[in-house]
This record gives sequence, C-alpha cells and structure tokens, in this order.
Amino acid sequence: MTAVSGTPTFKRLPRAVREQQMLDSAVRVFSRRGFHAASMDEIAEDAGISKPMVYAYLGTKEELFVACLEREGTRLMEAIAAEVVGADTPDQQLWRGLRAFFTFVGAYRDGWAVLYRQARGQQPFAGASAEMRERMVEVVAMMLGRALAAEGREVRDTDLEVVAYALVGASESLADWLADHPEADPEKTATRMMNVAWLGAGQLLRGETWTP
Amino acid sequence: MTAVSGTPTFKRLPRAVREQQMLDSAVRVFSRRGFHAASMDEIAEDAGISKPMVYAYLGTKEELFVACLEREGTRLMEAIAAEVVGADTPDQQLWRGLRAFFTFVGAYRDGWAVLYRQARGQQPFAGASAEMRERMVEVVAMMLGRALAAEGREVRDTDLEVVAYALVGASESLADWLADHPEADPEKTATRMMNVAWLGAGQLLRGETWTP
Repeated sequence: MTAVSGTPTFKRLPRAVREQQMLDSAVRVFSRRGFHAASMDEIAEDAGISKPMVYAYLGTKEELFVACLEREGTRLMEAIAAEVVGADTPDQQLWRGLRAFFTFVGAYRDGWAVLYRQARGQQPFAGASAEMRERMVEVVAMMLGRALAAEGREVRDTDLEVVAYALVGASESLADWLADHPEADPEKTATRMMNVAWLGAGQLLRGETWTP
Repeated sequence: MTAVSGTPTFKRLPRAVREQQMLDSAVRVFSRRGFHAASMDEIAEDAGISKPMVYAYLGTKEELFVACLEREGTRLMEAIAAEVVGADTPDQQLWRGLRAFFTFVGAYRDGWAVLYRQARGQQPFAGASAEMRERMVEVVAMMLGRALAAEGREVRDTDLEVVAYALVGASESLADWLADHPEADPEKTATRMMNVAWLGAGQLLRGETWTP
C-alpha cells in the first residue's frame, strides 16, 4: 500500500466506491464462511485494506452483516422492479418478477443461503430481514391490488396482504430449494412457481373462491 | 419435596410423565421469554423441580429447546394427520390439513413465534427445524402424488417436491402473519390459504399449466 506519485492510489478512491468494495468482500466472505466463522481479518484481507479501516467505514461485524443484507436486498428489489415495470398484464408482471427473483437467487446461491437463511431467525438480524420481507409483501400486494382495480374489482387490504404473504413465503421456500440444488435451473424453477402461484392467484383475480 | 408415606409423591411420577411436565414448562418459558432470555432457573421453577433435575433429564438449555421443537413439531404433524386421514378427496385433504395447521398455530401463537421463527435460521437449531420442514414437505408431496395417481396421472418427483415446498413455504409465511395478528381468525386464515393454494394446485392436478 505504498503510494507512488502520479499513479491512482488506494487512498484516492471516493468513499462510496471504497464502501462498495468492502461490502463486495464482506458478502464474499460471509457467503463462504457463514456469519459466525467469518472474521473481520479475512474481510479486510479480501478487500486489500486494514482491519481498522473496515471498522471505521462500516462498523462492527454485526453492522457489516446488516449492511450486506440491506445492499443485497435492495439489489434484489431493483432487479425485480426493473423486470416488472415493462409488463402490461398481471400474469406477465408476476412471471417477470418471479423470473428476476429466481435468476438472482440462482446467480448467488451461496449468498442466499448465508445472507437470507441465516438472517431470518437470528438476532440481531431478524429485524433487517423482516423489514425487507415487509417491503416485498407490500410490493406484491400493491401489484395485486392494481390488477384487481384494473378489472373494476375491489378487495379488502387484508385479503391482498394475506395472498402476498403466501406468495412471498412460497417463493422464499422455493429459493431455499434452489439454493440447495446447484443442478436446478432458475428459469425452470420460476416457471414451476408461476404454475403454483398464478393458476391460484389467477382464479382469485377472476373472483372465484373455494369453499369447504 | 418431602415424601409423605402413603401419598403420591413427586418422586413417584414415571419418568415419561415427568419429562412431559418439564417440556410443558420449557415451552411456556421459551414462549414467554425467547430462547436467549429464558433461564434454566425459571424453567425449573415453573416445573416445580430443581435445576440439576432438569439438566439430568433433558440436558442443556440448547438440548431442551431442541426437545421442545421436536415435541411441538410432532404434535403439529399428528394434529394434521388426524384430520387428513378422514378426507376422501384431495381438496378435502388439503383443506383439513390447512385448517388443522392454522388452528394449531392460532392456539399457540406465542409458541409459534418463538419456537419456529427463532429456530429457523439459528444455529444450533436450524438442523432440527429443517428436518421438521422436510418431513412436512414429504407428506404434502406424497398426498399430491396420491391424488395424481388416483386420476391415473404421473408427475416427476421433483415437480411434486417443488409444489410441496411452495405450499409449505406459503403456509409458514401465513402462520407468521397469523402469529402477529391476535385478532385474526385461524379458520378464516386457513380458508384464505386454501384459496391461494387449491385454486392453484387444483388446476395443476387437472393437468393445466401456465406458459410465459
């Protein structure tokens, strides 16, 4: 880390870029080792930076993990939103959203297993994880609500929320399955989920219900 | 704990009964406090027994938590199986299974929140929790497979497994929702889940599929 005059040096990187590089390293190391076994030494080494610098930028190992969760969660949401925005029918919206979701998980199987599965039930990460999930549920409920409104129908918010919880839960469960099956194809997994989800949700949208 | 001759004393309880009483106390205390804040002192006090006895019977706090998880998981599976066995059509099977599941969760909202949600991502409980989930997925996949076989149709095991993962994940997600909403009715929640699940699974069983 000696600075040679005239060449771009490590120190000249803007703070935001430096932070993203540290987060890249942290995601890699957490994915490889799991939260508990990951060490700040290894993260600092992977980032080519001193450990005190990592602490100075991003705080404790816990704070770093939450920052990873939040960045990856935001990336996932953005990947889904970018795909959904171009679709003009509800089934195409859901299909594109699911395809983007499973493509993301398929590309980062290790990251999914570590970041999401570990974070879900574990203090102090359960809060950040639950918040991400709420955002996802909200987006799905809003999409469903719009699709219904477009057909001139109205459904109570609770009903939309419940359907959204079911769809998000089903997708998370299949994401775990995908993460555990390196041979499984993400797009095929999305198609399977679409079959379960849409052929159900599609009938609900047409106002059909099942009664005991 | 002085033994009075001729009266039934604490010490005369059979081991199995004693263990169940300790597990009852442990479930109560874990539900009230969460795993980390729960103390073996409080569990022993709730059970009216000395702390060394709790350790002698059921081991460390971690082992006790896993024993609680396993007992509650087995109870849940048995409650579902008892309901499903009397149903003769696939939709009635799924409906009764869902109703039993949400009735169980509704009756033990605190226990669900603590035992299942905490256990899911957290070492060293993730293993026991994943195992319970696998059993549930297997049972659902088997039910779906039988329903298909009854119609003379065959589907690859992977496809059944994937649908089962989606249904179990959706149900878990709605169980979390139910645990967080004390005002929500378990049977109504089961009906909502049935609407999402069956109107989807029902069309799959008739061989319909959605394609992009």
